[in-house]
Amino acid sequence: MPHSLPKQPEIPLQNITLTDSFWLEYQRLVKDVVVPYQWLALNDKVDDAEPSHAIANFRLAAGKEDGEFYGMVFQDSDVAKWLEAVAYLLAKNPDAELEKTADEVIELVGEVQQPDGYLNTYFTVKAPKDRWTNLAECHELYCAGHLIEAGVAYAQATGKTRLLDIVSRLADHIATVFGPEEHQLQGYPGHPEIELALMRLYEATGTQRYLELTRWFVDARGTNPHYYDIEYAKRGETSYWNTYGPAWMVKDKAYSQAHLPVALQETAIGHAVRFVYLYAGVAHLARITQDQEKREICQRLWENMAQKQLYVTGAIGSQSSGEAFSCDYDLPNDTAYTETCASIGLIMFANRMLQLEADSRYADVMERALYNTVLAGMALDGKHFFYVNPLEVHPESIRFNHIYDHVKPVRQRWFGCACCPPNISRLLASLGHYIYARRADGLDINLYVGSDVETSVGGHTLKIKQSGGYPWQGTVLVDIACNQPLRATLGLRLPDWCAMPELTLNGTPLEIGKRQQNGYVRVDREWQDGDRLTLTLPMQVTRVKGNPLLRHVAGKVAVQRGPLVYCLEEADNGDALHNLHIPAAAEFRTLAGTGLFKGKTLLQVDGLREDSADALHQPLYSYNPAPARLTAQTLTFVPYFSWANRGEGEMRVWINEA
Amino acid sequence: MPHSLPKQPEIPLQNITLTDSFWLEYQRLVKDVVVPYQWLALNDKVDDAEPSHAIANFRLAAGKEDGEFYGMVFQDSDVAKWLEAVAYLLAKNPDAELEKTADEVIELVGEVQQPDGYLNTYFTVKAPKDRWTNLAECHELYCAGHLIEAGVAYAQATGKTRLLDIVSRLADHIATVFGPEEHQLQGYPGHPEIELALMRLYEATGTQRYLELTRWFVDARGTNPHYYDIEYAKRGETSYWNTYGPAWMVKDKAYSQAHLPVALQETAIGHAVRFVYLYAGVAHLARITQDQEKREICQRLWENMAQKQLYVTGAIGSQSSGEAFSCDYDLPNDTAYTETCASIGLIMFANRMLQLEADSRYADVMERALYNTVLAGMALDGKHFFYVNPLEVHPESIRFNHIYDHVKPVRQRWFGCACCPPNISRLLASLGHYIYARRADGLDINLYVGSDVETSVGGHTLKIKQSGGYPWQGTVLVDIACNQPLRATLGLRLPDWCAMPELTLNGTPLEIGKRQQNGYVRVDREWQDGDRLTLTLPMQVTRVKGNPLLRHVAGKVAVQRGPLVYCLEEADNGDALHNLHIPAAAEFRTLAGTGLFKGKTLLQVDGLREDSADALHQPLYSYNPAPARLTAQTLTFVPYFSWANRGEGEMRVWINEA
Repeated sequence: MPHSLPKQPEIPLQNITLTDSFWLEYQRLVKDVVVPYQWLALNDKVDDAEPSHAIANFRLAAGKEDGEFYGMVFQDSDVAKWLEAVAYLLAKNPDAELEKTADEVIELVGEVQQPDGYLNTYFTVKAPKDRWTNLAECHELYCAGHLIEAGVAYAQATGKTRLLDIVSRLADHIATVFGPEEHQLQGYPGHPEIELALMRLYEATGTQRYLELTRWFVDARGTNPHYYDIEYAKRGETSYWNTYGPAWMVKDKAYSQAHLPVALQETAIGHAVRFVYLYAGVAHLARITQDQEKREICQRLWENMAQKQLYVTGAIGSQSSGEAFSCDYDLPNDTAYTETCASIGLIMFANRMLQLEADSRYADVMERALYNTVLAGMALDGKHFFYVNPLEVHPESIRFNHIYDHVKPVRQRWFGCACCPPNISRLLASLGHYIYARRADGLDINLYVGSDVETSVGGHTLKIKQSGGYPWQGTVLVDIACNQPLRATLGLRLPDWCAMPELTLNGTPLEIGKRQQNGYVRVDREWQDGDRLTLTLPMQVTRVKGNPLLRHVAGKVAVQRGPLVYCLEEADNGDALHNLHIPAAAEFRTLAGTGLFKGKTLLQVDGLREDSADALHQPLYSYNPAPARLTAQTLTFVPYFSWANRGEGEMRVWINEA
Repeated sequence: MPHSLPKQPEIPLQNITLTDSFWLEYQRLVKDVVVPYQWLALNDKVDDAEPSHAIANFRLAAGKEDGEFYGMVFQDSDVAKWLEAVAYLLAKNPDAELEKTADEVIELVGEVQQPDGYLNTYFTVKAPKDRWTNLAECHELYCAGHLIEAGVAYAQATGKTRLLDIVSRLADHIATVFGPEEHQLQGYPGHPEIELALMRLYEATGTQRYLELTRWFVDARGTNPHYYDIEYAKRGETSYWNTYGPAWMVKDKAYSQAHLPVALQETAIGHAVRFVYLYAGVAHLARITQDQEKREICQRLWENMAQKQLYVTGAIGSQSSGEAFSCDYDLPNDTAYTETCASIGLIMFANRMLQLEADSRYADVMERALYNTVLAGMALDGKHFFYVNPLEVHPESIRFNHIYDHVKPVRQRWFGCACCPPNISRLLASLGHYIYARRADGLDINLYVGSDVETSVGGHTLKIKQSGGYPWQGTVLVDIACNQPLRATLGLRLPDWCAMPELTLNGTPLEIGKRQQNGYVRVDREWQDGDRLTLTLPMQVTRVKGNPLLRHVAGKVAVQRGPLVYCLEEADNGDALHNLHIPAAAEFRTLAGTGLFKGKTLLQVDGLREDSADALHQPLYSYNPAPARLTAQTLTFVPYFSWANRGEGEMRVWINEA
């Protein structure tokens, strides 16, 4: 293990300055559009959206207002995620007004906290006697987890510990309630999240109790006698959710990855968001505790997910029912669920795996999810969102065939279950956390996002300026600044999509082969101020083919350039996209986008279209027909993340290869 | 209209003797296996099946037993369909014991009839005060329709009118309850069926009232103010079915084709069985009343269904939700619902259209549905049934992905909702009704089923012996017997699948072209005893391609020989059927089946398989991979109707063309 990890592989956001035009625009959207819009939504001030009532619930629970709780049992988490996003914004962009608003919300949150530390508006307002009686279904620990993440983030960003104190008291309370002792409940959350939050709290505070509590939640999970059944019997077999029949969440234990102890789990299963949140927490715990068994569990489950159940867009969760994984290699394109939040959780899981072990396979998937599904989750205007991210859409069928009920052909403004938009905010606002990983002897670059970063190696300061035109151009410049020559290893990820990377140091080629380790090229030397590494990642347009067991993409190709997966839209290519073919030998051209696509690289290829002009008057089936007449058509591809910004129309990622 | 229709185009079953080895085996199965098994099921004497309780419900309603009603609100219809099947069997195969059992059931049915003629066990036992209060949801008129069909069939088969009298009293009662008068209910059935039944009753009895009642039900349908809403309000907004939310059947009026008056309907929509039952009734009414508007409605809706929404297997209803049609050209293969009963209803609709106008397009679809989906609905052992008939099955995915919840990879013994098995019985037992259509000047042969038929033309008896090896061989012999030379027109259908039919009369070629009319070759002459027509329908194996708007079959072919659609099964071809290809120029070979397939023609072709042997160890996605390695593999096709008789495995109808 030459590249052992420091205890804190994450570089504080304060030490990272984004300079990347692609991502600055997204951060601007988050700051200027998404977060303000979400604040209005949380306060029910958006006319054309479903009410949130999330802030009102806090006022009710604080006794500052009369009324009824409204919203999901996990409505609190929307406020927590908003606060967390605000924290990340404030870390780099002081904004007195925004900070004042956040501080007021934090005070309100504090007023809701009960004398014993408990904090949840649903139970405080609606069912104070039912606290901790329904972990399988009721998201109390999930909401606590999001508040804890917000508390950690807000303290790290602003130095203010008011929310950190509140959530520490909440975590302390939880630590008294749950655990192996007879007077404690032997439970764990139905929706994982608190595990990764407690690990962050542990790292922020150093309080061993939070690590132990995480370990309890992870190790108790799925053991027998089963806690879901115990609490179900104890509360008289009442059930909160009946979507798929009475107490289905209690009964379908694989839905929440509680069908087996984590040590015995072999496949990505159940609700995709829960899965990645859970194993992000387990990976975090494995790193901190150097627990080899948990590390292997995470590796095994990652491998199943990434090699058997991952869409080419970095999406997971192929079925709507239970927002869940299916079996290996079952990845339908049109009925896919592929929730935005699941890809966000996937990124969190990937980052923890990278912090656990430097292997580019995690970063490759992280990049794939980030540049494709996560960005597709938000419109280019920052005001409309996808919960579901299919790889093929046929709007007419969506209107009639109920297998598509979960699919929307255009993005919506806000959701009754508003998990995805604030999750996008907090991810994009904290993007700095995902770009670099500190190593004991240096720094790894996981994502090629233009940024200035400051870290320390062996007690000395190392500054790096990363620049380039990613994801549109493949040249990455890494400029080093240090007060004195500094021995360090810099690891640059070699993306899986790039066949022929090249590296120079101050203009002199460096052989990559012998410096390659687990998908990173590692340059170990005594760095001089002004040194420049230039990594060239030629962005040829690439045809992606699926594993032969992926029956939904047999005979088809996806088109990728750099980290971006592309798609065909009706707006550029007409309808009946299934009749378009890419000849096997055709060469792709890049094209500078205009209008909505200004600054984006589009692709074109001389394709073929099976003629369907007269199809409405042709029979439904023909016997031994002449070979289909194929006519030349230029096919125009847009980045998948930017689809559905021009109204409703067909879209598809996987195209026939002629 | 040179070939105008007699009032009774249907030849009585007594006048048709099946001699066809293919179909006699099915009729034997129905008589020896299905009908006896169903009798046990109706009496809850099958251990491994869900209880039916259908006969017990009649005993309860007759006051002969105490207990609770059990089963669906339409449970009575299972008994009615059984009686109807028995009637058809008895028409040609006297069986004293079976007739005695049927007579006893009929007596029991009679005992359930109320003094005013009303007859329904559910409402009599469970909710006597709620009669006729929920037409949208509660199948009272549907059950009545099935009893009426049984009454007509039993009288025609046995000459006994006990059941005909009972159902006539029931129909008389219904005629007092429903109609335009102020003291009547202005309703019509939520599940059509009574329309076609009343038309049969009208033809059997000549009672004008039944025709008028049919006209009422058809013309009132979908008018405003909407009867579903009226009765819903009147009964205090109670709802029987909540599958898709409260009162969804009331609200989703297109589900039962009541969203518009039939005159304004343009597309096949809603629950597929209801659609074909309704329009079978409308077509019947159109023929009897020579109603040109209703005829055009039926033509228009047939055309939409057959040219935009029909599977190559003659199946309809592409979505599970609502067991319903989707939109034009939305025909997924793996998530298809394609209920057996829907194809049976389609055959009933097709036959009424043929009786309305001799056009082979109706018979072509009838044949397609009969030889493929309907037969696939029953295992070769006659004991297991499919409700749902997909065109592609991947068993592993079915277990995990809930979009396949309605799909079974193997046939089941019986269903809680047991509509399909008894519907198969009554169709197969009455097959004679579908083979021929009487014309004023002769006879049309719609199906090539070996049989002796006796009819009359101009008051003289004409006997025809049809023979041949259909569906395996394409030579059809039509031998004429008549006591004296007889002028008549014989119409022989020219199947759509046959490119080069040939016809001889007593060995001398007859030119088909000039004798062709709406897909029939018509031979008009003075027939001599001993004349023989020989129709040769070469059964080349045919590649079927889908309309370019059918996105689910783009780039794929189905394989058909004669009327039979074939499929690939895992048992013959290994798994990962999506990796098999048929080269564009490959020639098919026929192969005599053995074992389970004895007597059946199988097909083989020199195909190709994309190598997936090492796929489990290959990455999920590959960049610019070398072209897939294709290895030669003999592909073996079995008739679609005989799939899933060898345990669980993959199956697919649409195969890649290389």
